[in-house]
Amino acid sequence: MQYDLLITNSSILPLASDSTELIPGGYLASIGEDIVAMGPMTELPANAKATTTIDGTGTLTMPGLINTHNHAAMTLFRGLADDLPLMAWLNNHIFPAEAKFVNHEMVYWCSKLASAEMIRSGTTCVADGYFYEDAAAQAFRDTGMRAVAAQAVVDFPAPGVPDPADNIAMVEEFINNWQDKESLITPAIFCHALYTCSPETLQKGKELARKRQVPFFIHLAETEFEVQESIKEHGLTPTRRLYQLDLLDQNTIAVHCVWLNKEDQQLLATTGTKVASCPGSNMKLASGIAPLAELEQQHVVIGLGTDGCASNNNLDLFAEMDLAGKLQKTKKLDPTLLPAPTILRMATSGGAKVLGLDEKIGCLAIGKKADCIILDLKGANLTPFYGANLLPSAATGYDVQTTIINGQVIMRDRKITYFDEMKTMTKVRELAREIKAPT
Amino acid sequence: MQYDLLITNSSILPLASDSTELIPGGYLASIGEDIVAMGPMTELPANAKATTTIDGTGTLTMPGLINTHNHAAMTLFRGLADDLPLMAWLNNHIFPAEAKFVNHEMVYWCSKLASAEMIRSGTTCVADGYFYEDAAAQAFRDTGMRAVAAQAVVDFPAPGVPDPADNIAMVEEFINNWQDKESLITPAIFCHALYTCSPETLQKGKELARKRQVPFFIHLAETEFEVQESIKEHGLTPTRRLYQLDLLDQNTIAVHCVWLNKEDQQLLATTGTKVASCPGSNMKLASGIAPLAELEQQHVVIGLGTDGCASNNNLDLFAEMDLAGKLQKTKKLDPTLLPAPTILRMATSGGAKVLGLDEKIGCLAIGKKADCIILDLKGANLTPFYGANLLPSAATGYDVQTTIINGQVIMRDRKITYFDEMKTMTKVRELAREIKAPT
Repeated sequence: MQYDLLITNSSILPLASDSTELIPGGYLASIGEDIVAMGPMTELPANAKATTTIDGTGTLTMPGLINTHNHAAMTLFRGLADDLPLMAWLNNHIFPAEAKFVNHEMVYWCSKLASAEMIRSGTTCVADGYFYEDAAAQAFRDTGMRAVAAQAVVDFPAPGVPDPADNIAMVEEFINNWQDKESLITPAIFCHALYTCSPETLQKGKELARKRQVPFFIHLAETEFEVQESIKEHGLTPTRRLYQLDLLDQNTIAVHCVWLNKEDQQLLATTGTKVASCPGSNMKLASGIAPLAELEQQHVVIGLGTDGCASNNNLDLFAEMDLAGKLQKTKKLDPTLLPAPTILRMATSGGAKVLGLDEKIGCLAIGKKADCIILDLKGANLTPFYGANLLPSAATGYDVQTTIINGQVIMRDRKITYFDEMKTMTKVRELAREIKAPT
Repeated sequence: MQYDLLITNSSILPLASDSTELIPGGYLASIGEDIVAMGPMTELPANAKATTTIDGTGTLTMPGLINTHNHAAMTLFRGLADDLPLMAWLNNHIFPAEAKFVNHEMVYWCSKLASAEMIRSGTTCVADGYFYEDAAAQAFRDTGMRAVAAQAVVDFPAPGVPDPADNIAMVEEFINNWQDKESLITPAIFCHALYTCSPETLQKGKELARKRQVPFFIHLAETEFEVQESIKEHGLTPTRRLYQLDLLDQNTIAVHCVWLNKEDQQLLATTGTKVASCPGSNMKLASGIAPLAELEQQHVVIGLGTDGCASNNNLDLFAEMDLAGKLQKTKKLDPTLLPAPTILRMATSGGAKVLGLDEKIGCLAIGKKADCIILDLKGANLTPFYGANLLPSAATGYDVQTTIINGQVIMRDRKITYFDEMKTMTKVRELAREIKAPT
């Protein structure tokens, strides 16, 4: 049997269901983009050969993590201004920096840097939404990252879109550029929010998404203020407004969903709307705690996201797993909420469903794309290791030693082999120096 | 000028005040246990030589982190049973495992493992409280870890103390064994809680602590249940009870302090009682959110702790820094609370004050002990680096590349050189196999 890639002697964590059972001493093999065989080493065909064999002794192999919300290029603004009131942070720091520094080159290099950080911390698929999304999609392609790349839409002049009247046409052009062109890249549309897009823009955007069968992202109910303003102005919660505008369906991804009342939650559940939850961002920006336990009970499909780097200051989905679980337990004073298997599912197959990619990715199974990460279990922080339920609360991105996307080894033994990470960091440091002198 | 140790070309973060200003391109030098010189490289004496010179190009040197609450040996129970109701977790899993598996050998090896994890993640001083604390103190000494080691006291038969009547005498013997014997080890007493120690035991314990001038640790107001029961039984909050028993003073460290009313907070402030806050543990066990912002306003001295590993599943104080800040912002929906400089202070000089060690450690300054860590700033997760305020939300324990305690290099370039980490992990894995078959 000839494979392209073969991982041997690793504990395999398929996560094909909510079970976190391992195949101890297992193997996983891929040909081209696809997983073609896996199981205990005792079942590895005697004549198995591979172009690349990775000895996985002392490791665990699991599906790559799926980051369902990012503004990747915002790595440039990491730590630029923190601990400020939301409006001061946005109006005095982030928006001016974006107006001045966001361009095609910036988005390309800073999205590449985001890819490097995500690949290092075990993310193999990201949903991104930003300006100059063509440049972001190029960055993801060039770093070997699987991505749902969504061109951002707002109803005011924005980087790359001086006239908002051109918005929807531009998104269509973006979709034309990327749909069915690269196996790693899925184009999408990201209408920023109800308070930045008119109902007409939102409806046109969703119409386009339906016509072209691409995901439709929108920030929803991130802050209490947003909900209060919506009720004041329209007599409706933001979620109810989206419903009335016929924007909720199985291909809409509502991002944040921190402030939902019971009816809002039901609307998301009955329409099959997906949720991208970003606990780290919601904490850093003091937005609040999303009702993930309640949404879970109503079988809403939930994925985890980091949000843009400046809203979090890191892109490590292992940290988001830890936060998501611990935060929900804290909110309700109930340690049984969001147990480890649920959290692991949200970061893998849940994320895949959110992005409509669950036929391809989200678990380790024959026929799925070979998107997987190999964790070093020999570190002090993972000793002893009684089982995979330990991962959300004890593993960090650094425990990832090898990252494989679409059958391609992108990072091996913590060295990114697929692109020049050093050059990427040097480029971003040059851009950063224009914003603020280094200390 | 002849130094023992010299770090060159590193950004020095002294943290001698709440300022997070850096000395870019700096050096730090030690002789024996002490920092003897530091400043910009331009001020390094031309004739400077050192037994060990560390080129710190691309790094940041800061005070080692101080973990103000741990039960180090509980690394053995990491991930043994999670996501359970508190009482089921304790009564069905932790207490039985402790009764069966805690002995001198277990505490020695499992505390050593905790040291390895802490050294790797930048902790240079830990406050520990457990049974067989002699073994823990030996483990800290043998791993080069600075420690306040506190023998645990409960009023029921416990590991190593079959007859609780012997408790206080045993603590006195423990103090005799360690006081002024080793520069790294400070003995102390840890009376577990108001609900596990009688008033007489607590008062005898505190009397001994006063006589021998050692720190007195006690869990306080960790859960809402504890407060409700105390009010039901005694008509007083736990904090008020401690005050009435004359147990609150500048050498008492109250651990957790999640459920404090305004009067409780004032009692801690006016008595100068110190607080060890463990946000990760309070989240995992669903205890709640400590009122750190309010305690800060009242100038209560606060340090951060991980709590025992099983209550957290990791011992990374960088994670606690991130949680402490983000959690407080979330609780009050105010992003300005506990800004990065405050968080960094809690994890360094605040922790030193909590433990009564602030004359020796907690910041980088001439005359202080050389307890410092060198962070690699070249990683994708710390790029770009606009300043040290980024650290709590973007750095993880893994960014620590070198750890120095008391002038001694314990870990260099992520390799622990001071003791045999592999042997330690092997020993703990053997102990773990007795509890649960490996997966």
